[in-house]
Formats: sequence, C-alpha cells, structure tokens
Amino acid sequence: MTQRRPTIGVFDSGFGGLTVLKALLEVIPDADYVYFGDTARLPYGSKSVETVGRYAVEAAHYLEGHGAELLVIACNTATALALDRITAAAHVPVVGVVEPGAEAAASVSNNKKVVVIGTEATVSSHAYRKALERRGLNAREKACPLLVPLVEEGWIEHPVTEEVARIYLGEAFADGFHDADALVLGCTHYPLLKPLLDRVAPSHVSIVDSAQSTAHAVAGRLQKLLPPPPVGEERRAVPRLKFFATDSVEKFRRLGERFLGHSIEEVQHVDLKE
Amino acid sequence: MTQRRPTIGVFDSGFGGLTVLKALLEVIPDADYVYFGDTARLPYGSKSVETVGRYAVEAAHYLEGHGAELLVIACNTATALALDRITAAAHVPVVGVVEPGAEAAASVSNNKKVVVIGTEATVSSHAYRKALERRGLNAREKACPLLVPLVEEGWIEHPVTEEVARIYLGEAFADGFHDADALVLGCTHYPLLKPLLDRVAPSHVSIVDSAQSTAHAVAGRLQKLLPPPPVGEERRAVPRLKFFATDSVEKFRRLGERFLGHSIEEVQHVDLKE
Repeated sequence: MTQRRPTIGVFDSGFGGLTVLKALLEVIPDADYVYFGDTARLPYGSKSVETVGRYAVEAAHYLEGHGAELLVIACNTATALALDRITAAAHVPVVGVVEPGAEAAASVSNNKKVVVIGTEATVSSHAYRKALERRGLNAREKACPLLVPLVEEGWIEHPVTEEVARIYLGEAFADGFHDADALVLGCTHYPLLKPLLDRVAPSHVSIVDSAQSTAHAVAGRLQKLLPPPPVGEERRAVPRLKFFATDSVEKFRRLGERFLGHSIEEVQHVDLKE
Repeated sequence: MTQRRPTIGVFDSGFGGLTVLKALLEVIPDADYVYFGDTARLPYGSKSVETVGRYAVEAAHYLEGHGAELLVIACNTATALALDRITAAAHVPVVGVVEPGAEAAASVSNNKKVVVIGTEATVSSHAYRKALERRGLNAREKACPLLVPLVEEGWIEHPVTEEVARIYLGEAFADGFHDADALVLGCTHYPLLKPLLDRVAPSHVSIVDSAQSTAHAVAGRLQKLLPPPPVGEERRAVPRLKFFATDSVEKFRRLGERFLGHSIEEVQHVDLKE
C-alpha cells in the first residue's frame, strides 16, 4: 500500500486545465494522472449553473471510473458554479481552484484589495468574491470573455490582445480599485497571458495564478490520503499521463501542447452518450 | 389543406441563426416558426465533423417532433459539416445556408473570384469552395474565429473589432485574391458586422449575406410543398414564433434580441438528455 502511486483525476472543459496539470506535475511528480477535457461542449464560461453542473458531474464520474482517487476541478467556471454539486456526487475528495487562488491572493495582497478576472459565468457566480471576503479581502470581479478565444487563436503576444487586456483591466482597476495590489487569474487559460498582463496591469500589482497554489493544496490533501513511502524508498518519479477528450483527439494534442508546455502522447476519444 | 400555414423549423448552435430567421420573417411572413438554439453546446465552429453531425441530427429530430415540415439549417458550420447527414436522418425537406450563399456570390461576382469568411470548422470543410467551384468561381476561404466572440461581447462597432477584421481581411485579400470582388459572410453571426466589414473590405467588394438568399430558397421549396391559398384568400400574415434553447432561456432572450432585431417572448428550455 505504501508503495502504491496515487492516481489523480484532473478535469476541465478543454485545454486550460493543462496549466494546472503542468503545476501538479512539478509539485507531485510521483503520481499518475488521468485528464478529462470536455472539448465537445466547451466553453463552459458562457453557460448556466445547471448546464455546467450536469456536465461537470458526468466528467467527475468518468474520471472516478478510470481510477481517480482524488479529483482536481482544474476549471474556474466548473469550480465556481458546481464544486458543491461535484463534491456531493463524487466518491473521492475533490479540490477546486477557487479556494487555493483566494488563499494565494490573501497572502500576497498588502492592502486587502484585489481584482479577479475570469469568464462571464465565474464572475456572475461571485465565488471568488465570497472566498476572498471570508479572508477579509475586498474584490472587484471583471468578466473578460474575449481572452479565452484570443489565447485559443494563438494571439498570446499580439497588439490586439494587449489592447483588449488594456480595456478590461482599465475598467477593473477603476472606481475605488485603482490601488488594488493583486490580480487573480480566475481562468486556467490566462496563465499563458501572464507576461502580457504583467505589462498591462498597474506596476504595483502582483499576479496570482491559482495553478501553483492548487497544486500545493492537492499535495496537502494527498499526504492525508496516502502515507508517504517508507524511508529509503521512493515512489517512481516519472508520472504516467492519460488524456481523454470529448471532441477531436488530434486537435486536443495540437492545442493542448501549448498549455501543457510539452508533448501530449496518448489521447483517447470519449463519447458521453449525448 | 390549402389554408394550412406551414411550420418551418430553424436550427442553429445558438443565436446566429436568428439573422436567418429575421430574413425568413420578411420573405415568408405567412408561416409559423420553431427555432432551436443549441446554446448549451455552442459554439460548433471549433468542433469536429463527428460531434457537429451528432448534435445537428438531434436538433433536427427535435424540431420535427415539434411540427416542422421543412428544416432550415441556419448555421454555416452545421450546414458545411453535416447537411448530408441531417438530410439523410430527417423526414422532411432540409435547406442549408451554403448553397444559397454560393448562388448569391455567383450572381454578384464579375471576375468570379470571391473571399469567404467563416468559423474554423466551416473553412476546414471547404464546403463553400466546392459549392463555388461548381459554379465556376475561385474562392479563398479564411477562418475568423475571433469574430463570433466579438459579436457576442457586443463590440459590434469597436476599434478592436475593426482591427481584428483588418488583420483577417488583409490576409484573405492577398496572394492572388487582391481583386476578389465579393465577400461571403459564411457565418450567421457576421451580418451584425456588415457595416464594419463594408468599411474594412476593399472598396470594390460586394458583401454577400446568405440569410437573404436562404430565405428565398426556402420560399421556393415551400411553394412546391404547399399549394398557395386560393385566390381571394390569404394565409394569416402574422407569424407565430416558438423558441427552444438548451442553455439559459434568460440569456437566449437577452442576446437573441440583438440578432433578431426585435423582442423574443417565449423561450422554452430543452434538455437533450446528455
């Protein structure tokens, strides 16, 4: 039992969750991973609570069926809209990205005033504002629906993306939030825009990427679930990765590599019987 | 029988098909309409042939179940990727938007050289190029994945949208297509950008919106299906409209009005048992 490697299930509507998987691989290399991208029904960011909840629970069950002993909801929209519902439906522990993101923001913000950017659905849920207020922070939430399509178009360093970011952040850092000192990337696509957002955001602002803090939260949960290997023994440190996607596997491989930062070998198509 | 009003089913992945419905209401006001927007699974434009085909056939059956005697596939992606599959699965006549759009382009282009803009999926299918080549025209197809999110963000007349259009059209009207004299709007979202595209496209270019030509194609099919009312009698010219959406009905109403150009009263939520 002590030598058994844990299997971690990671779920996202598409590719963005791969930025969280990337952080997980750095923090917890001695695990196996099953990743589910619901690419046939993406994006979740413009959809309703009911629809996102139904999709997310299906994905959670799929990953449990493939051996996941812990589920990471590596999608801000699914976490914001459906974490409770997923946790209730799942038979294993579930970690979302909102609480770790809020925790990281609380630790870097000095004046307790932060801006959160995310999809329309994440922002409407006010999940971040609630999580931040519980920690004594004031939050301005701003929906940035064009950033995901810009990332998927590959316009990572592009004048149009810079102009769009300037408009969105200009609206967010206004009316009493000029002095907010942290910017939370409340969507797993946004880490790809970090250098650009760093240039566009006011210079006193720290950028908080919840991928890192989520990976550490998962490591903490895992320690409680599985005892560490005995002294002198180590779990094999080369993670095994399995990917499932509901739309084209070829496209998943091609676009996914941009998010994960290295090549994606094996992707299997999944039909959720729609 | 002669006084019976036809019921026309109109299908799109979301809201764009409402620009086609708008044209249908002008050309065929003496009909009833059932509109199905698959908003829980939009957009189709970035998805695979297999996935779009499965979704579209489900929608077609749904509309038949609600009395549609003729189906209009008011979505370029679904038409381009799945018209044959829908036609084979349906029990009523099916009209797509690609053939009418190609027909209209053939009638306005003098030098038989046209540019078609659309989603990634529509462009990859080459449905427009094939339809235009059958009519003796040369076509350059250009995917413009950012235009749909820009329209949905409401940035209809916006410097960012103008810059994005300038980049896309600059790439399209190049390398042997500088003198193309027609621009086909191969996505039902694009008619909302017609004034902007008219400014950005080279001045000698005519813009072809397939909504109008599709409405006339439907009127032609209908005449063969249903005899006109006897002389002296007329069908009631106030169309009845029924809307179905797979995601939030409130959002459908709100966003849909922008596309249809007038208010949307009754929207019913549909669960396609996913």
